[in-house]
Amino acid sequence: MSISFSGNPTAAIIIIGNEILSGQTLDINTQHIALTLGELGIVLIETRTIADDQEMIVKTIRELSPKYDYIFTTGGIGPTHDDITAESIAGAFDLKYVRNEEIYSILQKHYANLGEELNPSREKMAFVPESSGLLHNDATTVPGFYVKNVFSFAGIPNIMHAMLKAAIPLLKKGKAVKSKSMEVMIGESKFADRFQDLQKKYPNVDMGSYPFTKDDKHGAKLVLRSLDYDALEKSFEELKQTIKH
Amino acid sequence: MSISFSGNPTAAIIIIGNEILSGQTLDINTQHIALTLGELGIVLIETRTIADDQEMIVKTIRELSPKYDYIFTTGGIGPTHDDITAESIAGAFDLKYVRNEEIYSILQKHYANLGEELNPSREKMAFVPESSGLLHNDATTVPGFYVKNVFSFAGIPNIMHAMLKAAIPLLKKGKAVKSKSMEVMIGESKFADRFQDLQKKYPNVDMGSYPFTKDDKHGAKLVLRSLDYDALEKSFEELKQTIKH
Repeated sequence: MSISFSGNPTAAIIIIGNEILSGQTLDINTQHIALTLGELGIVLIETRTIADDQEMIVKTIRELSPKYDYIFTTGGIGPTHDDITAESIAGAFDLKYVRNEEIYSILQKHYANLGEELNPSREKMAFVPESSGLLHNDATTVPGFYVKNVFSFAGIPNIMHAMLKAAIPLLKKGKAVKSKSMEVMIGESKFADRFQDLQKKYPNVDMGSYPFTKDDKHGAKLVLRSLDYDALEKSFEELKQTIKH
Repeated sequence: MSISFSGNPTAAIIIIGNEILSGQTLDINTQHIALTLGELGIVLIETRTIADDQEMIVKTIRELSPKYDYIFTTGGIGPTHDDITAESIAGAFDLKYVRNEEIYSILQKHYANLGEELNPSREKMAFVPESSGLLHNDATTVPGFYVKNVFSFAGIPNIMHAMLKAAIPLLKKGKAVKSKSMEVMIGESKFADRFQDLQKKYPNVDMGSYPFTKDDKHGAKLVLRSLDYDALEKSFEELKQTIKH
């Protein structure tokens, strides 16, 4: 049972990175984007993690871009040979992968100031799909970019945060999904029947139970989420009464 | 550029949980499964996070099950109404969703010992797709299950770990991918050209650079991975020499 949050814009996240698939790095970007989208009333429908592999990136962008209002990618936009996100997104949309003169000019100034050479790896960071918009931000010299409905962020968390922040003014917002939650230190099977009855009574409130163990005891976090704020308040009050008894 | 680790079994992970998509919970299960699969020589090709939504689960299982040797799911196998993973997997394979008599008998004994009632929510935990095998483990009374090439684990990390452990003897193993890594405290654009040359010289070693910032300084973790252990050693020695200079 899952409410549709209908009318709100929808989104998917694509995490691009062998380091996540090998387990070497824990992905914490998904949670940050998810929380931000929640505040904006944009419904995150799915996330995917795929390798730094051009064919896979192209296929995934082509599949997801038409299905959702927004696609957010993280990772693969740096200067090294395994950074192929920009080129792959260009390929997915049959766009040219071109040197963006605004980024190039930023890079020229940046490396001139440092007294360093604008080598080919550095110049590579100026290449984005043609017609891309830029996500200037205060965390990095080289901006993120967006093209069609795909927003591409760096994989480093603090830079990703800054690029997402730069993207926010460009996004359609929905009505924020509000949530209420409580933790109970009893096993789910002791309240599942009553919890289900409550869900049936309030079909437009999405009710989930997330079990955990703490000091070897079973507990659960009960989360109520809805666009109908009145129903949310009412059902949450009832939940507190119900689960107490 | 990404090597295929060809010949090794392949896998995908499906994280089922509104709590991950809403950002309320950070998924740490993917990393644990990813690291374990790496040790087993099973190549993780992609991961997806989807809602507790029957249609989405069915669609995702039907799409991924034929593509990979193994599918691992986490979440949605408890007693509450939002736990619909088992029923959805049955639906994906057109199998009946039936009461497993072995689990039922475990539950009968368990609740009899506790002097508690085997209520409908508790009985629900005995329902799995017909012909499922069970993943008995030392973290929980109710086992996980597997059917066809899909292994279903709980979402609670310590229980998931125990169920994965129970699944390991049932999996085909591949040759373990070995990796070597080093951290450098210089920006990627300073070594990207040399790093790419090294990648070209050792095409069967997968070379990735994962940038980070530490105390406002740019650094990168350089990771080399391969099934060819000799090439891995050689290329890593060369990397250390190359990036020093």
